[in-house]
Amino acid sequence: MAHDEPQRVLLAHGGGGQLTSQLIRELILPHLKNEALSSLGDSACLELASTSICLTTDSYVVKPLFFHGGDIGKLAVCGTINDLAVAGSRPVALTLSLIVEEGFEMGLLERILESIGRTARESHVSIVTGDTKTVERGSADGVFINTAGIGIRLPGVNPGLDRIAVGDRILINGTIGDHGMTIISQREGIRFESRLASDCAALADLTCRLFEQAGGVKFMRDATRGGLAAVLNEMVEGADFGIEIRDTDIPIKPSVQAAADMLGFDVLNIANEGKFVAVVSPATADACLSICRSHPLGRDAALIGEVVASQGAPLVELRTKIGGKRIVQMPYGRELPRIC
Amino acid sequence: MAHDEPQRVLLAHGGGGQLTSQLIRELILPHLKNEALSSLGDSACLELASTSICLTTDSYVVKPLFFHGGDIGKLAVCGTINDLAVAGSRPVALTLSLIVEEGFEMGLLERILESIGRTARESHVSIVTGDTKTVERGSADGVFINTAGIGIRLPGVNPGLDRIAVGDRILINGTIGDHGMTIISQREGIRFESRLASDCAALADLTCRLFEQAGGVKFMRDATRGGLAAVLNEMVEGADFGIEIRDTDIPIKPSVQAAADMLGFDVLNIANEGKFVAVVSPATADACLSICRSHPLGRDAALIGEVVASQGAPLVELRTKIGGKRIVQMPYGRELPRIC
Repeated sequence: MAHDEPQRVLLAHGGGGQLTSQLIRELILPHLKNEALSSLGDSACLELASTSICLTTDSYVVKPLFFHGGDIGKLAVCGTINDLAVAGSRPVALTLSLIVEEGFEMGLLERILESIGRTARESHVSIVTGDTKTVERGSADGVFINTAGIGIRLPGVNPGLDRIAVGDRILINGTIGDHGMTIISQREGIRFESRLASDCAALADLTCRLFEQAGGVKFMRDATRGGLAAVLNEMVEGADFGIEIRDTDIPIKPSVQAAADMLGFDVLNIANEGKFVAVVSPATADACLSICRSHPLGRDAALIGEVVASQGAPLVELRTKIGGKRIVQMPYGRELPRIC
Repeated sequence: MAHDEPQRVLLAHGGGGQLTSQLIRELILPHLKNEALSSLGDSACLELASTSICLTTDSYVVKPLFFHGGDIGKLAVCGTINDLAVAGSRPVALTLSLIVEEGFEMGLLERILESIGRTARESHVSIVTGDTKTVERGSADGVFINTAGIGIRLPGVNPGLDRIAVGDRILINGTIGDHGMTIISQREGIRFESRLASDCAALADLTCRLFEQAGGVKFMRDATRGGLAAVLNEMVEGADFGIEIRDTDIPIKPSVQAAADMLGFDVLNIANEGKFVAVVSPATADACLSICRSHPLGRDAALIGEVVASQGAPLVELRTKIGGKRIVQMPYGRELPRIC
C-alpha cells in the first residue's frame, strides 16, 4: 500500500542540500513565480518607486491550518498586506518563510502555497524571497509561516495617533468577530445553523482609495488579535482623549453574535482579519463611509463612534442600546490563542 | 517555593492584549530601543537612502538555543545581515518575529533579546518592527525566530552569477565547519580537547569594504546550510564553467577536522555562520585577500581555487593533497537538521 501513502516533508527538505533545492524548484516556485524570486539568491534585489517605505513582519501559527474563508497561507499574505495598508502604504513585495514539521503532508503544503500564490497575485504583490526550515516531528505543529513586507508610502499620506482630535469619527469597514468566531467554533467542533466564515481579506485596494480620495483619514489600524477593543484601547493609551462607540452602530452578523453568546465571548475582543478601524475627520466622515460602501470589502461599513474629550484617564466607552455606558477594557489576551 | 520558580511565558503573552503589550514594553523594547520601533505601529515607516534595496528573510530553529560562540538571537541577526551583505548591500533595518512555546523561561527569552539587541547595535542595524506569537506547550521547541531585513545596495556594485568567468579565483574569509561542528558536538554531548566555537558573525563591515575597495568581486554568497559544497554547487548549476578547489588551501581548524573525522562528517558540507565565498577577478584576487586578512573577520582568509572551463557537465572538483581529484557533490541535506 506504499503507493497510497501521501508524500511527506522530510527533515532533509530543510537541510539546504539537494532536497531543499528540489522542494523550492518543484513545489514553491511554480506557485509564486516572479522575476525577483526566480533568481533564488539569498536576498531579492528590488528597485523601489520611492525611498519612503513601510516595513512589517508577522508570524502565523493559526490552528486549524484550513478554515472556512481561508487558510494559513491566505492569512499570512493578507495579514502582512493589511499591516502595510493601514500604515498608509501600497504593499509591493513580501518575503515568505516556512517552518515545517517533519512528516507534514506534501499535498497540504502545496495547497497552502497555491493559496499564498493566488492571494499575492490578486493583491498585486510579489513574494520576492523566502526560506524553508524543517524541524523534527513534535517540534512544531504542522506549519508556521512568517511573511515580512514592504509598502511604498502614499505621497502626502501621513496617518498618526498625534493627528487624532476630539470630534473625529470612528469608521469600520464591516462586521466584527467573523474570523475569531470561525476559528474557535471550528476548533471546538461546533456547528452553527448558518456557517461562519473568516473575513480574511487583503484591504490595500480599499485603504489606498480611502487615503487618496478622502483626505481626512487621520489614523488607521487593522483589528486583529484582541479585536476592536484592543485597537481602540491602543489609540487612547497615553492620549488626552477618549473614545465612545455606540453598541447599535457596530456591525455584527447575527450568527457571529449568537456563537459568541453561546461560547461566552465578547465580540469586541474577537479577532478580525479583514477589518480596519479608521479615525476620520468629521468633515470627511460621510465621504469615507461612501467610499467604503462602494467597495466589496466595505459594504457593511459603519461610523460607530467618536473621539471625545476625556475626563481623567482616557477611556474607551460603549453606549448601550438602553442608553447606559460601559467601559471597554483592553482584553487580557487569553481569549483565543493561535487565532492568526 | 513558588518564589523560586522561574517566570515563564504564558499563552496569553501572544494574545494581543494586556500581557502582550506588557511583554513588548518590559522585555523587548528595553533591549532593542530605537525611534522606528518605539512607535509600536504594525509597520515601521522608514526613509531609505536609496530606492535600490535588497530584501531577505530567514527563520531560525537552531538547537540548542545557546551554543559556544553564540545563541539563536545572535544567529538570527547575523544570518540576515549576512544574506544582505553578500548580495552587495549595506544592511540597515531588520524585523524580528518570535514564536515562543508556552512555558518557555522568561529569563532565557531575555538573554536572547539582549543578544539580539547587542548584535544589532554592534552591526549598526536597527530592529524596526516585530511580532510575538505563542503556541501551546509541545507545539514548538522553545523559541523560533524570524528576521527579515533591508539593505541599501552599494552604488555601482552588482554581483551576479552571470559575471563569473573562467580564471576567476575563489576566496573564503576563514576556516570552515566551525558552526556546524560546534552545534553537532554540543548536541551529541561530546567534548573535544580544544573547545569548538561557532563562527557566528555579522560580515557586512568586511563585505562592504571588499565590494567598495576591491572592485573585482563578481559574486558572493555565505556558506551556511550545506556548507562550502552547497555554495560552490549552486554556482555551477546550469553554468558553462566548473570550479576546482585545492584541499591544501582550504582553511580548517584541526579541532574541527578532528571532530568531523570522528563523527563521520565531510567538513565541506558543514554549515558556517560567519563565512562568505567570493568569486573575484584574477587581477584583484591578491588585493581582496589582503583586505580580508586585515579585518578581524578575515584573518584566516584564503584563495582556495579557480573557476575552470567545464568539460561536459559543470562540476565542483577538489584537488587532493596527493594530486588526485574528486567530485564535490551537492549535499543531500540530511547531515544536520536545525543547524540554524
